[in-house]
Amino acid sequence: MAKTLNIIGLSGSLRRESYTSKLLLAFQRLAPSGVSLDLVSIGDLPFINEDLEGQLPDSVQNWHRTIEESDGVLFATPEYNRSYSPVLKNAIDWGSRPDGYNAWDGKPAGVLGSTLYNLGTFGAQQHLRQVLMYLNLPTLQQPEFYLERSAEKFAPDGTLTDLHTEEKIREYWEAFEKWARRFASTE
Amino acid sequence: MAKTLNIIGLSGSLRRESYTSKLLLAFQRLAPSGVSLDLVSIGDLPFINEDLEGQLPDSVQNWHRTIEESDGVLFATPEYNRSYSPVLKNAIDWGSRPDGYNAWDGKPAGVLGSTLYNLGTFGAQQHLRQVLMYLNLPTLQQPEFYLERSAEKFAPDGTLTDLHTEEKIREYWEAFEKWARRFASTE
Repeated sequence: MAKTLNIIGLSGSLRRESYTSKLLLAFQRLAPSGVSLDLVSIGDLPFINEDLEGQLPDSVQNWHRTIEESDGVLFATPEYNRSYSPVLKNAIDWGSRPDGYNAWDGKPAGVLGSTLYNLGTFGAQQHLRQVLMYLNLPTLQQPEFYLERSAEKFAPDGTLTDLHTEEKIREYWEAFEKWARRFASTE
Repeated sequence: MAKTLNIIGLSGSLRRESYTSKLLLAFQRLAPSGVSLDLVSIGDLPFINEDLEGQLPDSVQNWHRTIEESDGVLFATPEYNRSYSPVLKNAIDWGSRPDGYNAWDGKPAGVLGSTLYNLGTFGAQQHLRQVLMYLNLPTLQQPEFYLERSAEKFAPDGTLTDLHTEEKIREYWEAFEKWARRFASTE
């Protein structure tokens, strides 16, 4: 039997009622049987600052361990001013500090985005993909995943109610699980 | 006599001995007589979080005032993983929050970058320019400004010692002052 894939999901929005985070919760609920999705909080990391690297803060050390122990990563970003959110990039950058260390190296990745409007995070996702290229995360190309008009797609309690989106999530998982298994360790 | 231009300079690096910050200090020292460059610290802003917007933190309110009172902005960024630094984008994003507010609208801008290596922040600057496009900051196109191999260009006390870079800064200021004056209020 195939090993369970331990995927981590990162939301680029800190807002309590964030639709980006709710999207990841829907991904978690709809995960295939061989996959677990762990939603990891990244808001307590300090801003990148090389002066902190002499003795890495505990939050950064824990973060490194979380990435290392994962079998893959889903990056879910809102779009701020046609690019990704700073808190998400900050977490990504810490994964490659100090200089010469790269916890991301070889981790299979997927990029998701959610926005209240129609133009669904294309700019943010393109910028993120450029960063993931540099850090050598093999990133699922297709399907892309854009959740537009997010506010219309969840119940007040945060549950996804849009069946079309649910179908897209299932299709995404099917492709992403195959993708991640290509890179999974066979221990 | 022309009014003094009040330009603000933002360093995307928080490191005490940052070359990006030292580059801005060199710009400050070499500013033309009709221009003042004020280096503004952005590291104390919280991460963007819509939950904070009910009562904007004092640091954000001060930040809005600083942008509004300026006649233009120099954005100086290091390059982290082929993109800009999170702390700089966070400060930019706060300048456009809450939704509907945009302190940046119409402010003339310049984009600078500094790196220890040869490939001098091209990726970071391109991402920044896309963000500035969205926020409607008229941005100086030429000359571009890349400081490569930054560690070789300053004395231990932080003073710029490279004459070629000094010349490039003077040329940049000449173009930037003209650019900013096109957009300056004539009060």
